[in-house]
Amino acid sequence: MQTLYNGKAKTLFAGPSPDTIIIFFKDTVTAGNGVKHATIPGKGALTAQISIKLFEMLKDSVPSHYIKKLDAQSFLAKKLQILPLEVVVRNYATGSIVKRLGLPRGQAFQPPLVEFFYKSDALHDPLLCLAHIQALGLATPHELAQMETYARHTNALLTDYFWALGLKLIDMKLEFGKTPDGTLLLADELSPDTMRLWDARTHESFDKDVFREDKGDLLTAYREVARRMGL
Amino acid sequence: MQTLYNGKAKTLFAGPSPDTIIIFFKDTVTAGNGVKHATIPGKGALTAQISIKLFEMLKDSVPSHYIKKLDAQSFLAKKLQILPLEVVVRNYATGSIVKRLGLPRGQAFQPPLVEFFYKSDALHDPLLCLAHIQALGLATPHELAQMETYARHTNALLTDYFWALGLKLIDMKLEFGKTPDGTLLLADELSPDTMRLWDARTHESFDKDVFREDKGDLLTAYREVARRMGL
Repeated sequence: MQTLYNGKAKTLFAGPSPDTIIIFFKDTVTAGNGVKHATIPGKGALTAQISIKLFEMLKDSVPSHYIKKLDAQSFLAKKLQILPLEVVVRNYATGSIVKRLGLPRGQAFQPPLVEFFYKSDALHDPLLCLAHIQALGLATPHELAQMETYARHTNALLTDYFWALGLKLIDMKLEFGKTPDGTLLLADELSPDTMRLWDARTHESFDKDVFREDKGDLLTAYREVARRMGL
Repeated sequence: MQTLYNGKAKTLFAGPSPDTIIIFFKDTVTAGNGVKHATIPGKGALTAQISIKLFEMLKDSVPSHYIKKLDAQSFLAKKLQILPLEVVVRNYATGSIVKRLGLPRGQAFQPPLVEFFYKSDALHDPLLCLAHIQALGLATPHELAQMETYARHTNALLTDYFWALGLKLIDMKLEFGKTPDGTLLLADELSPDTMRLWDARTHESFDKDVFREDKGDLLTAYREVARRMGL
């Protein structure tokens, strides 16, 4: 298989047709812009299975790159031109925004807060407002509005879904891309690597914060999410 | 006179009536969140006179706190509740945005870029998008739209004015406040302490960058701005 891109947590291979790719979920986990990293056998299969189930769940509501499951650790997706933006949806304040704006951890955002960050390791992913995105020519006003709509819709659906499993969706990072004909699609993954999930009662973390903050065993946490999802 | 607030570059005194204040321009100059500072006799009179002339020029176009000149170093203003926001208008990229977004210095913004920053020394004045400002309850959507309109209008008028004097208005920082009845007004000062002015031909700085970057004598630079303004 031809490797198209070897990322921190996923490898992208050329798919069976030129407009498809195979997304393979690796067992590596990184934090702090790659400074902290580890290999945790079994992690890739968990993030793959969780992503597959969530993309399938969203299928009729939010257009995405997901096509079908291939095996335990990979799925087939549409080949996109990925926009250099991270779209972050926050239901509660935690992580970087607590330090950045001096907010109390756990404060609710009503409505959920949608933020855009410039995907640039060299610049440390700076925050962008709509005016910056347009000045940099990274997306059109229509694409921005569409991304925000898809992000809010994804957030509403996943919030309800996880709530029923006793999990609070705290925040998540989404990425988007465009097909050659310009159609905007939700891309990347949907897993505890890219979203924060807290137990609804105890507020225990079931996401990458377990690794980021050395709060226990990452695999145990991800397995519990998968178990509640019926995987 | 009763001191209401002793800032880095200005002191605010109680005015002759409870709804007024006296803004006194000090000879102190600071940069880098107060880390670099100096006293330059004559600077306060220059920033005061330049501010007075610019506020008078804007009088019929942008509602502001300015009432009248008092003496060489102070003017009378309406007492406002100042919003904790710095509104930055950029015509060309320079300063912090060059590092933040990796832009080439001198790149033009068309339309001018309007940014909001949270006035907080402790948090180092972080960038805020409209959604943050609303989440933090710092201003209403109507106030934000009004600030942006006033900022763009001020920028357009001052850009034309300085262009005729052979100076390019690169960027500027504005502040706004509200009267007790909720009227939004342009506040603070309008001087080379709060805006960047480059000679239109040589791109030599005639603003606080002279002090920030040790590029020469600040007083000489400010005097040249005053001279071109007919002061």
